[in-house]
Amino acid sequence: MKILRKISETRKITSALILRKKIIGFVPTMGYLHEGHLSLIKAAKKKSDVVIVSIFVNPLQFAPNEDFTKYPRNFKKDEKLCRAEGVDYIFYPDIKEMYPDDFSTYITVENVSAGLEGKIRPEHFRGVATIVLKLFNIVQCSFAVFGQKDAQQACVIKKMTEDLNINTKIIISPTVRENDGLAMSSRNVYLTPGQRADAAYLYKALEYARRKIMLENYNRDIAFLKGQMSKLIKSRKTATKIDYISFNNSRTLEEVQTLKNLKSASILISLAVRFGKVRLIDNIVIKR
Amino acid sequence: MKILRKISETRKITSALILRKKIIGFVPTMGYLHEGHLSLIKAAKKKSDVVIVSIFVNPLQFAPNEDFTKYPRNFKKDEKLCRAEGVDYIFYPDIKEMYPDDFSTYITVENVSAGLEGKIRPEHFRGVATIVLKLFNIVQCSFAVFGQKDAQQACVIKKMTEDLNINTKIIISPTVRENDGLAMSSRNVYLTPGQRADAAYLYKALEYARRKIMLENYNRDIAFLKGQMSKLIKSRKTATKIDYISFNNSRTLEEVQTLKNLKSASILISLAVRFGKVRLIDNIVIKR
Repeated sequence: MKILRKISETRKITSALILRKKIIGFVPTMGYLHEGHLSLIKAAKKKSDVVIVSIFVNPLQFAPNEDFTKYPRNFKKDEKLCRAEGVDYIFYPDIKEMYPDDFSTYITVENVSAGLEGKIRPEHFRGVATIVLKLFNIVQCSFAVFGQKDAQQACVIKKMTEDLNINTKIIISPTVRENDGLAMSSRNVYLTPGQRADAAYLYKALEYARRKIMLENYNRDIAFLKGQMSKLIKSRKTATKIDYISFNNSRTLEEVQTLKNLKSASILISLAVRFGKVRLIDNIVIKR
Repeated sequence: MKILRKISETRKITSALILRKKIIGFVPTMGYLHEGHLSLIKAAKKKSDVVIVSIFVNPLQFAPNEDFTKYPRNFKKDEKLCRAEGVDYIFYPDIKEMYPDDFSTYITVENVSAGLEGKIRPEHFRGVATIVLKLFNIVQCSFAVFGQKDAQQACVIKKMTEDLNINTKIIISPTVRENDGLAMSSRNVYLTPGQRADAAYLYKALEYARRKIMLENYNRDIAFLKGQMSKLIKSRKTATKIDYISFNNSRTLEEVQTLKNLKSASILISLAVRFGKVRLIDNIVIKR
């Protein structure tokens, strides 16, 4: 496994790989790898000749009031984990390499970026789209793997790839969960034991909605389901604020208000909840 | 020479060319080709194995009040000219192929897009950057040739390519002029004979500034030069409005106010002038 710190060096390697007809699988990450990331790497490994993982905490996707400087980092551990998974290259640039002083080009994906996380974190997806396009151009991957955990991010990347005719296939890999259902996230390390226990209720709330719709065939207004999910989460005292609970078309992210006459639509049920200063997101997709 | 109307077909061809290590030279145009375009094609031909010309009048770079529907088109003539120049492929997509109904991704290049044309045509360079990135991803070119005539466009494309780590070299080709100095432009066909004669004074004004600075070593405030250039243009009665005459750093496009202490800077002198409804631009670059 080789660690690449420079764009020019990385591109030289990937250009040579392409001429040798190698399939490059890519997993972009912000490091502090957990089982969720490893499942993306495993998925990439299966379908490629060469796996590249990037580790870069992207300042452009954090707002000034967010946790950029505090975001957890542990490169030595990440390196070990990548090696164990058979990763071929880690692309690990520093900030100046990716964003020189006069950097001024941005990608905006309208519509799908607007609601949900985009409403609470304006400019977040501009930062995500911009870094992902840069990384794609550097690693020149045949495909890239993203996690379903960041559902809106997956939609934004897919839309960007489609709209800009980017020659990279986007693969979305299922969310990996702890035994009690909590979605794996680098931010879980911030949780106190009490918050950690209560955080499992996010998935319980999502599962409640899935059961109502899929098993009990609940077929009416979504307001009732949201209310019940909200109650379930608020029953945990460390859950301090629900940013949103939302039902959306899983591709366009248009909000869904009722389940009536909604045949064969694929619905994204997503939520964001704060436990003190820690903000967690989760989601499931159901097909009616 | 083959005419390609579909993105998927084009990409299949260019991917195969890359695997055969062919150098693809690309000239993006809006058609209605003139000597200026042909000089770009000749420049591409010299350095490549395969030349692709795109012909696409890009709606995204026209404001609602601009001349998108009236922009001159003559594909049959363009086809003949390309064939004569030894072009290998014309990429000639229709609007729906490039912009499906739910298209919503845009590239913004801040700073260099803000002044000059960008001030008068807001969103113009967003449209230019977006279509150029799409075209690059489709034709997968090693290099692309743009004209110095659209100086700010050249700066925007260069900056985008640098910032987004796009694997395409940008070549800027000199402006081709009529015998009296008028820069070649598809919009010149709109000029009445009187306007056409007066339009030559744009270049005369630029040449006046060049002479003052380079030969007479004029070394002071730029306001005087601008005033003289303006007088010269306004002396022609069909020149109805000067949008701007501007002196800028040729790379960053920062405005230059004085020539004092300005050693070894490369200065872009550019102007935009209206002859009735026809708006013409021109520029020169001088190195002190």
